Amino acid sequence: MSSSISYRGRYNEPVPTSNLMNDEADFAEFEAFEDEEATPRAPSSEYSLEVQQLEMSQSINKPNHLTSSYDLQNLVIRRGQEFMIRVTFNRIPEPSDDFQIEFLIGANPSLIKASLVVVVFGPRAGEGGRWQGRVLEAQGGGALTIGITPAPDAIVGKYRTYVAVSKGTGMQRSKRDATTDLYLLFNAWCPEDPVFLPNEAERQEYVLSDYGTIYQGSVGAVGHRDWVYGQFERGVLDACIFVLDSSRMPIYNRGDCIKLVRKGAAMINSQDDNGVCVGNWSDDFSLGRSPTSWTGSARILLQYANTGTPVSFAQCWVFAGVFNTFLRALGIPCRVVSNFNSAHDNTGNLKTDLIFKEDGSPDERNTRDSIWNYHCWNEAFMTRPDLPPGLGGWQVVDSTPQETSDGHYRCGPAPVAAIKEGLLCHPYDAAFCFAEVNSDVVFHKRDRYGALTPYRVEKTYVGQNICTKSVGSSRPYDITHTYKYPEGSAEDEQTMSRAEEYGCVRDHSDVPETPLVVTITADQVYLGQKVVLQVLFQNRGNGHRVIQVQLAGAIVYYTGVTAYRLRDRSFSVTVPANQSVTEFVTVAAEEYAPFLGSQLSLYFMVTGRSDGQSVTAMKLVDLKTPELTLMVSGAPRVKQEMFVSVSFTNSFSFALMKVQLSMEGPGLMSSRSRYYSSIEPGAVITWKDSFYPRLDGVRVVVAVMDCSNLRQVWGVIHVVITT
Amino acid sequence: MSSSISYRGRYNEPVPTSNLMNDEADFAEFEAFEDEEATPRAPSSEYSLEVQQLEMSQSINKPNHLTSSYDLQNLVIRRGQEFMIRVTFNRIPEPSDDFQIEFLIGANPSLIKASLVVVVFGPRAGEGGRWQGRVLEAQGGGALTIGITPAPDAIVGKYRTYVAVSKGTGMQRSKRDATTDLYLLFNAWCPEDPVFLPNEAERQEYVLSDYGTIYQGSVGAVGHRDWVYGQFERGVLDACIFVLDSSRMPIYNRGDCIKLVRKGAAMINSQDDNGVCVGNWSDDFSLGRSPTSWTGSARILLQYANTGTPVSFAQCWVFAGVFNTFLRALGIPCRVVSNFNSAHDNTGNLKTDLIFKEDGSPDERNTRDSIWNYHCWNEAFMTRPDLPPGLGGWQVVDSTPQETSDGHYRCGPAPVAAIKEGLLCHPYDAAFCFAEVNSDVVFHKRDRYGALTPYRVEKTYVGQNICTKSVGSSRPYDITHTYKYPEGSAEDEQTMSRAEEYGCVRDHSDVPETPLVVTITADQVYLGQKVVLQVLFQNRGNGHRVIQVQLAGAIVYYTGVTAYRLRDRSFSVTVPANQSVTEFVTVAAEEYAPFLGSQLSLYFMVTGRSDGQSVTAMKLVDLKTPELTLMVSGAPRVKQEMFVSVSFTNSFSFALMKVQLSMEGPGLMSSRSRYYSSIEPGAVITWKDSFYPRLDGVRVVVAVMDCSNLRQVWGVIHVVITT
Repeated sequence: MSSSISYRGRYNEPVPTSNLMNDEADFAEFEAFEDEEATPRAPSSEYSLEVQQLEMSQSINKPNHLTSSYDLQNLVIRRGQEFMIRVTFNRIPEPSDDFQIEFLIGANPSLIKASLVVVVFGPRAGEGGRWQGRVLEAQGGGALTIGITPAPDAIVGKYRTYVAVSKGTGMQRSKRDATTDLYLLFNAWCPEDPVFLPNEAERQEYVLSDYGTIYQGSVGAVGHRDWVYGQFERGVLDACIFVLDSSRMPIYNRGDCIKLVRKGAAMINSQDDNGVCVGNWSDDFSLGRSPTSWTGSARILLQYANTGTPVSFAQCWVFAGVFNTFLRALGIPCRVVSNFNSAHDNTGNLKTDLIFKEDGSPDERNTRDSIWNYHCWNEAFMTRPDLPPGLGGWQVVDSTPQETSDGHYRCGPAPVAAIKEGLLCHPYDAAFCFAEVNSDVVFHKRDRYGALTPYRVEKTYVGQNICTKSVGSSRPYDITHTYKYPEGSAEDEQTMSRAEEYGCVRDHSDVPETPLVVTITADQVYLGQKVVLQVLFQNRGNGHRVIQVQLAGAIVYYTGVTAYRLRDRSFSVTVPANQSVTEFVTVAAEEYAPFLGSQLSLYFMVTGRSDGQSVTAMKLVDLKTPELTLMVSGAPRVKQEMFVSVSFTNSFSFALMKVQLSMEGPGLMSSRSRYYSSIEPGAVITWKDSFYPRLDGVRVVVAVMDCSNLRQVWGVIHVVITT
Repeated sequence: MSSSISYRGRYNEPVPTSNLMNDEADFAEFEAFEDEEATPRAPSSEYSLEVQQLEMSQSINKPNHLTSSYDLQNLVIRRGQEFMIRVTFNRIPEPSDDFQIEFLIGANPSLIKASLVVVVFGPRAGEGGRWQGRVLEAQGGGALTIGITPAPDAIVGKYRTYVAVSKGTGMQRSKRDATTDLYLLFNAWCPEDPVFLPNEAERQEYVLSDYGTIYQGSVGAVGHRDWVYGQFERGVLDACIFVLDSSRMPIYNRGDCIKLVRKGAAMINSQDDNGVCVGNWSDDFSLGRSPTSWTGSARILLQYANTGTPVSFAQCWVFAGVFNTFLRALGIPCRVVSNFNSAHDNTGNLKTDLIFKEDGSPDERNTRDSIWNYHCWNEAFMTRPDLPPGLGGWQVVDSTPQETSDGHYRCGPAPVAAIKEGLLCHPYDAAFCFAEVNSDVVFHKRDRYGALTPYRVEKTYVGQNICTKSVGSSRPYDITHTYKYPEGSAEDEQTMSRAEEYGCVRDHSDVPETPLVVTITADQVYLGQKVVLQVLFQNRGNGHRVIQVQLAGAIVYYTGVTAYRLRDRSFSVTVPANQSVTEFVTVAAEEYAPFLGSQLSLYFMVTGRSDGQSVTAMKLVDLKTPELTLMVSGAPRVKQEMFVSVSFTNSFSFALMKVQLSMEGPGLMSSRSRYYSSIEPGAVITWKDSFYPRLDGVRVVVAVMDCSNLRQVWGVIHVVITT
């Protein structure tokens, strides 16, 4: 877009949308006062004050601001909290000396928009803006230690720093010096900052932890994988600022965490705006890396910043992982959340409609809704001054591109409390999130003419096991109760009717009563083992029943979409009055393995018909895979050489082809990969590599092995590094 | 985007985002029942029912549905209201004959998503969906007149129609016939439709009127121009559906007017999504047509639909005019609204900060906010089931690209009632609209160090004369009271404090009291006349005052941005205690004319300083231009040749260069243009052309003359056409 043409008559000055300065210098080194230009005057003092040096006191500030982990030469601080700088003058300043510290962000910095901040000392002290300044210590020879407290709503990003001395006819300013640039972040430790989080353990986890666990799999068999957020790795913070610049977000709005997280949700996916990650839910990833092959976010963000082009490919946990890095890098408390049986309804109502043929088999052609095995999004913690009281706290933000979220590819921030209460009349996208966790599943029978008759409504299937990593451990923390009242409680009914008042279309199908109940259970098995389904038929009626059973099995994507239909089975079961019968159905590995491709989910639907009544049960079986084995050796000390080995044994009967093995340890080693053209049955691979720890404490190395016929075999090892 | 790859594992069937069918046929002409495939059976009757003809009864339906004006061969109807079709069978159907009428929209139509609608007759009658059907009349020989009532929340767009007869082993269906396609619109006449508007005169104006008046200019000198909406012109309705297809809006959502108007607001501008119009606020329009040169929307929409590329160029009234056409074409009641002194604050708070130098002259370099002389947006009428009661009715929707509206280029629907009450906690973009009409103007003095001191707050300058065309006349209808309570009333104070609760940052500057008041008035003048400003200085104090006055004049864009600074004037005025002094300042045409370019707005700021106190007044002077003269001749009857002549006399002392003259009359003639390389001073041009009226009633021809040194000279003539 030729913005230079289009905006000529639109703004006095273009709105800066980049953190960078423009080509011109910020200010003249000597800036004459406008009212003095015509009448130059001799310096007011014969021995005038001159700035000799400006030091950013990193070794004091970084530990105080908990920013030592950032792999950056420049100062990184959090807003609303004092930091120190040391200014050395040519002599000891006197009370009459008039000087100021200036902080500038973006092009054409503006005092009124707070992209230029001035902290004034001397006779005019206090005249500046909302950042506080004080002299902490005056040393001999003219060195001052100065404390500066940025406003708790200051613009977040990279500032340039100057010291300017008033000289009677103008301001004498220090030279531009890139080493005095500083990064200002949101501050979860500052009670005045809207992202303030009171609990220290939570702050450690949700702001400072640079790796975490993302839950996947299925209800009742929740799996997990570790993900390296890597927000402190070299270049990552700059990449996050690049994401904002790339979005053309006005600098002036970058202190507002609501606007910033909403912009982030739009930018982490590539749709609309050439954002960070390209979604791909197929099994053809030949034009990029498969979503399952990444070990963490850093490599993705760095590639985006280096090339300016979207990175291929991502699925929901990748979007959520990268978004988490973006938020933590900027200082916003956040976490990745998984919702199991997540409804993705194209029309955004509260019904997920599943359609069955007259014989009881699933009618895939006419079923448009799907239920994702799981879906990951993020929560960010902040106050919501734009909303009525009670809606601050955790906010759902989701960067996975969803068609129905307000027509654009982003979602949130939606208050979790608003979802729980059914208060869907507030921004942003609360109704959409509400449907993801609260949809009813409606089972329809489709007759020969195409007419649909609902025969069953399942109110508890969708939105189970909503969980996130526990603070300080890798166990899942179930937060379903923060999204929903217990099913059937009075509060739940109130939430549902409130949601209905706000336009959510609920199911009110009049489904026939039936004394029949069918349920499926299955043990979790490894890939290559047989799957045994226990199908329990209950007859709560007083007559015995002959049930015609149709069992349909399929290999499904994690989005619930069928990749391959397995052979259907039909049989009949006779259940006496008020009794139960369990049928065991075994699916041998040979029956599913040839069709697995890279998917690891089997999905079974059983429909039983008796006397014109139908019942249906669904069961997702996630196949487990072996893990990688990681070992470390060497002295676990900062900057000392260490070694890590990753090994894998192919215990399958088939060869793994075109295998990519990657590993990464935040604070230890950046992401690295190896390629194996094939790993034959029975073969063992081992990869040993060296690294030099940069950060101390409990660190991890995460490794992932990925190939086109077996996805996401992973492993992790923890190691304690000392200084 | 390679959507075919990316979405493979994401949906059972791709979500249709186009109104068109896909390449395959909708259904087989004979569709065997699935349960019958193995056992073909003889026809149940030896003389089976066959469809011979399907007629859409246009001459009855179109007048009943008030859609006769659409220049379309196909049927156009409004939802929630019965229409008739005539089905001719090979014999008189018997009660046991089973047949159905099918309506399909988009690819892969789905019964559950209502993109496939079936209306069933015979033994299964009533089994279909939410559209009602009944036999109105059975004629001899097998012709049935059937009444169909689409659901009042049906998907809006272009449907395909089939008749299918059940034949024992399957459905025998009529052939695809494009002449039986029908357009289904929103229905402001149907009480169950969310866009229901009770008043008939309003429906005539806000849905059926195909031209209107848009107000421009300045407060106290509101000008206007006519705009041809042209929603009934050939190809326009299809172009509006193309806009939705081009946005990839899911078909399933196209019955929801809230989602549809929000999508429209995004699509009428080209940003993000390659929408209809490219904004350009400069005075260089060499890469397209100038925004002032259009006579109406039709040409823009048709060009967009024909090329699939955004059309250059637009400013706010063009965006609003095209959006109005889009909404009315689809049947949504809407109007164009103008807000005078419209605040466009880049940070989205409630303050517009104007900065002045110490000598009282405007500091343009440091002033970032601007106040548009006027801004146009739209209002659309609908219920808001997604919000608490009381927020239905008129909704602000704005397709002019605004940076601060939620980060994307669209705005609304925001309930006008929510703006009036300060209920800014509801979607969509109410806070942004609130600021446009309620911002305080804060005047700051900037000292030599750059420090800012507020010295005056003007609370009533922004958001005046909010107006729209009156129903049934071209006079402005002031609707300011629907947006704001009277300034200073208790209700106003409540609204303001509520807005503040929802995070709107208001001005609370402590400005000094001063007994001085300055005001500027000026008569409206024609371009080429001198401008006389009356500057009134009031001294309400008890001592006499010597006021140092700085008068700054500028030629400004309608966005309030300075195009050219005129010479400043300084003088002093002595005002005795408790008296007033008026100074007349004359600006000769020679002083401003050479710098006008294509702008017609002069802007004056007077700052008076006395005893360290400052006061400032602002005045916008819009220069009037002569009009075009239009005359019509010939018999004013449908399909009879008529003539229109447009003439213009160049009474200026300068030549007009590269002149484009355009005219258009909805229902009379489509847009046509002529080019004149120059029109010398004193020259007269006359263009006479013929046309054949298509529609009767009161019709207009609108003509606009536009060139690079004189914009938007226009004229209109009304003519009553009879049949």
